[in-house]
Amino acid sequence: MTRTVIQHVLSRLHDIGVSDVFGVPGDYSFAVSDAVCDDPRLRWIGCCNELNAAYAADGYARIKGVAALSTTYGVGELSAINGVAGAYAEHLPVFHLVGTPNMATQLARAPMHHTFGNGEYDLFRRMSEPVVCAHAVMTPQNVAYETERLIAEALYHRRPVYMAFPADLANQPMLGEAAPIPAPQSDPVRLAAAAEAIVAALADASTACIVGGILVARTGQRAALQAVVDAAGLPFSSMLMGKSVLDEQHPAYIGIYNGALMNEPVRQFVEGCDRVLMVGAPMTDFNSGAFTARLDPVRTITIGHHHAQIDGKTYPGVEMGELLAELAKRLARRDWPRLPAKSLGPADAGGSEPIDAAALYSGWESFIKPGDIVVVETGTVSMGMGFALLPKGATFHNQTLWGSIGWATPAAFGAAIAAPDRHVVLITGEGAHQLTVQEIGQFGRHGLKPTIFVLNNDGYLIERLLCKDPAASYNDLAQWRYAELPRAFGNDGWLTARVSTCAEFDDAMAAARNVEVGAYIEVVTDAYAASPLAEKLHEAVKTLYKS
Amino acid sequence: MTRTVIQHVLSRLHDIGVSDVFGVPGDYSFAVSDAVCDDPRLRWIGCCNELNAAYAADGYARIKGVAALSTTYGVGELSAINGVAGAYAEHLPVFHLVGTPNMATQLARAPMHHTFGNGEYDLFRRMSEPVVCAHAVMTPQNVAYETERLIAEALYHRRPVYMAFPADLANQPMLGEAAPIPAPQSDPVRLAAAAEAIVAALADASTACIVGGILVARTGQRAALQAVVDAAGLPFSSMLMGKSVLDEQHPAYIGIYNGALMNEPVRQFVEGCDRVLMVGAPMTDFNSGAFTARLDPVRTITIGHHHAQIDGKTYPGVEMGELLAELAKRLARRDWPRLPAKSLGPADAGGSEPIDAAALYSGWESFIKPGDIVVVETGTVSMGMGFALLPKGATFHNQTLWGSIGWATPAAFGAAIAAPDRHVVLITGEGAHQLTVQEIGQFGRHGLKPTIFVLNNDGYLIERLLCKDPAASYNDLAQWRYAELPRAFGNDGWLTARVSTCAEFDDAMAAARNVEVGAYIEVVTDAYAASPLAEKLHEAVKTLYKS
Repeated sequence: MTRTVIQHVLSRLHDIGVSDVFGVPGDYSFAVSDAVCDDPRLRWIGCCNELNAAYAADGYARIKGVAALSTTYGVGELSAINGVAGAYAEHLPVFHLVGTPNMATQLARAPMHHTFGNGEYDLFRRMSEPVVCAHAVMTPQNVAYETERLIAEALYHRRPVYMAFPADLANQPMLGEAAPIPAPQSDPVRLAAAAEAIVAALADASTACIVGGILVARTGQRAALQAVVDAAGLPFSSMLMGKSVLDEQHPAYIGIYNGALMNEPVRQFVEGCDRVLMVGAPMTDFNSGAFTARLDPVRTITIGHHHAQIDGKTYPGVEMGELLAELAKRLARRDWPRLPAKSLGPADAGGSEPIDAAALYSGWESFIKPGDIVVVETGTVSMGMGFALLPKGATFHNQTLWGSIGWATPAAFGAAIAAPDRHVVLITGEGAHQLTVQEIGQFGRHGLKPTIFVLNNDGYLIERLLCKDPAASYNDLAQWRYAELPRAFGNDGWLTARVSTCAEFDDAMAAARNVEVGAYIEVVTDAYAASPLAEKLHEAVKTLYKS
Repeated sequence: MTRTVIQHVLSRLHDIGVSDVFGVPGDYSFAVSDAVCDDPRLRWIGCCNELNAAYAADGYARIKGVAALSTTYGVGELSAINGVAGAYAEHLPVFHLVGTPNMATQLARAPMHHTFGNGEYDLFRRMSEPVVCAHAVMTPQNVAYETERLIAEALYHRRPVYMAFPADLANQPMLGEAAPIPAPQSDPVRLAAAAEAIVAALADASTACIVGGILVARTGQRAALQAVVDAAGLPFSSMLMGKSVLDEQHPAYIGIYNGALMNEPVRQFVEGCDRVLMVGAPMTDFNSGAFTARLDPVRTITIGHHHAQIDGKTYPGVEMGELLAELAKRLARRDWPRLPAKSLGPADAGGSEPIDAAALYSGWESFIKPGDIVVVETGTVSMGMGFALLPKGATFHNQTLWGSIGWATPAAFGAAIAAPDRHVVLITGEGAHQLTVQEIGQFGRHGLKPTIFVLNNDGYLIERLLCKDPAASYNDLAQWRYAELPRAFGNDGWLTARVSTCAEFDDAMAAARNVEVGAYIEVVTDAYAASPLAEKLHEAVKTLYKS
């Protein structure tokens, strides 16, 4: 039987890795929700609200490479738009499926609910344009071709796309057909030239390193980059956004590079190298230590998703994966100088002492197990955990560029849906947690068993460190009983705790390690117990804000 | 001392009725938050997230006529954008103050957090354009004039405006000055002509009525319209969006007009009148009973905010308030035929019986006291409560056109902040409540004592009634322990209850009437205990969706 418009789109999304659709249903999007529920290969994952659903899709895409989000017209899509924007900033191909009113309603310019009552039916798609790399209104005629175009665009840019489904058209049979668009391939001449230039540049260097960036993870090239490291013996670092794209237990790992703000030996090593291979690593504010990084452009080799740059020359049409494969083939192993990566190590404080920043981050570092998915919220917690040394196979996830507080809680849920066999550790400040807290009820609903740490330091700490008056009342929060929330949200039988001393913290972590249920631990610290990078940023506000 | 840019804007907003600024702080908007906290006439009302803050501002504007919302660049403003869109649809002048990066950062196209890292700094203002009636980037040079322009636009259209504050410019002294723009005045000739035409039309009519619409409330003309009713003795109705713009205990009130779906005697009366004065009452889907209303255009007289229409002639430049004042002066009292408005009355069910729809809505109708602010969420609850007869001075608030579920909980908080001396009753379904639930903690934080009813009917009921398979899994929700939430969110000492029989419901309402604290009552009903209008819509899906 001929597929309908929506059946075809969902089927193609399933082909590329989507097994779950996050969303909130609405009357204009019943066709989408119905089709998801009717497709035995897909699961509908209802979220508490659309922004949470978008964040969950973001977290899912970090694990699976793609994700789908379904919202209704106007109210739903606009509620999700900041989450989609985050996926844009962070290079995640999230397919945003928006149900819209029937064509008859649109053509009649009827003053419907979820509109401004003015007959305008193209406003909200236009509002989404800046946060997606491509968009289309899906019809029986265009669905075959547009689906392939949108998939190709989403994967080429690793960015979200927007697909509108008028309710009546969504259920009509599709017309025509279209073959999938093949993944881009490198121009063979340029690929060889780029590889040759890099090999030659490294041959002339006595010191060199790789900085693995977030696009390595986003494009599925972790193994390809690891192969380069292993073939060439090159040491590697990463910046905050790219943390854990390569295994941090690998002997070639030297630690996080963060300009002049942190890890001075790493800075000296990286900036002193004759050659630095930046692989998919954008130099954003937090990646560059508030613009204190000083990488010599002449010595820097850049490998992007679809291009490379060496010695002032740009090689367009060179695919990252193919170039990395070439390098792994062509580079001979050398005994490059390295630097040992340092863990945060054990803290001094213990027993009945309060949990200071050192105890907090050391404790969390020690809690993480091999293979864990570690989702860390924007703010002082990511600035602390960014410098923890992760065990083998553990991956670190943070919204380093977009930095929308509240992201981490639903993103951890999305990641858990994507990888039910891996242990998810969510670390969030309480201020950020308040934005999206209700999504924790989804873990229990789906039988997922994360460990959730909520740092309660009585306000928005990173803001206290960056604003003119740390005690300004706008940095205060409503006082909640966090540890009571899992039960109220239906997470039956979870381990919950509220800890404020080192011993309590240790005990709670030990207990969480040994339970077969979800765990939710409120960690109470002093309002100013900040991670070292957060302290440094407090001192670096002028370089950060160029003021 | 010369005011800074932000000080000037806040001062002018205070002049027009803003005493509180809802928001979430962020590093690019410190200048705004600092200035709010430094102005002794203003209060910073921190919300859990930006969408909630926007909804709270919406609720505040419904009571005070204006409101202000402060968010940070990108992540904050986009999270709020659906709430601002709701204020646009529902004619509420919300001033959206957005802190943006320094001009130096913008000019350098620096890859900062809360951007896409591409140097684009004008994307998000542009995304807001469709949801505001005016927008500007505020600078020392333009702030005097632009502030007046934006205030005038917001009040003329009763719609939101967007004001961007680059962090460095916000704290610079303003340059120049500008006088406030006077409110628009009617063209005297047209005003007299319109009034005369209406008086003449009514003189020829033997039956007539007024339909009071939402714009009467939005433009502050409740008393002016009431004066027309009292002068002329005209009976009046309203539609759902305009419910309670005139007092429902007034003897001239005939009940809610909802096309052919509900209140058949009211439909016959209104549609049978020789003349119907539609005052600020848009004919949207839910106002018109899913487009079943049949008002004869020839017999309809329309009074809009800035124009009137009678007998096929349009009178532009006629202000609603002035025209109503003219009519109150010119119309002589007549003994017009009327219809008595009906209350829902007592229900049949009682005692240990489950709470059916009749018991539910009758119970809530009887709970509301004179002067209460009744905030009712989109969905079956508003379709039920829309037909309750409200006591004197009670006002009904619902997002009838925009219909974004989740709105009511924060909107009720915003209304409570605006009117701390009035009792706020929030009635919400549990599905909608889940979207924005965390804002209930704000009531306790600010010492506010609302009564909150959460209807738990095990899913999105209105969707079950409108979709093809009521039992579709996407209409199910995570199962929460609602009554435990107030305590977890810090509302200490509140009355909480979970009721599932009529007697328990009655007891809980009696208890809530007699406490001096907030009350939170989970009301459990059958999944399909729907209000009559919701049932009718279930039968009217074809006219509603034009399918």
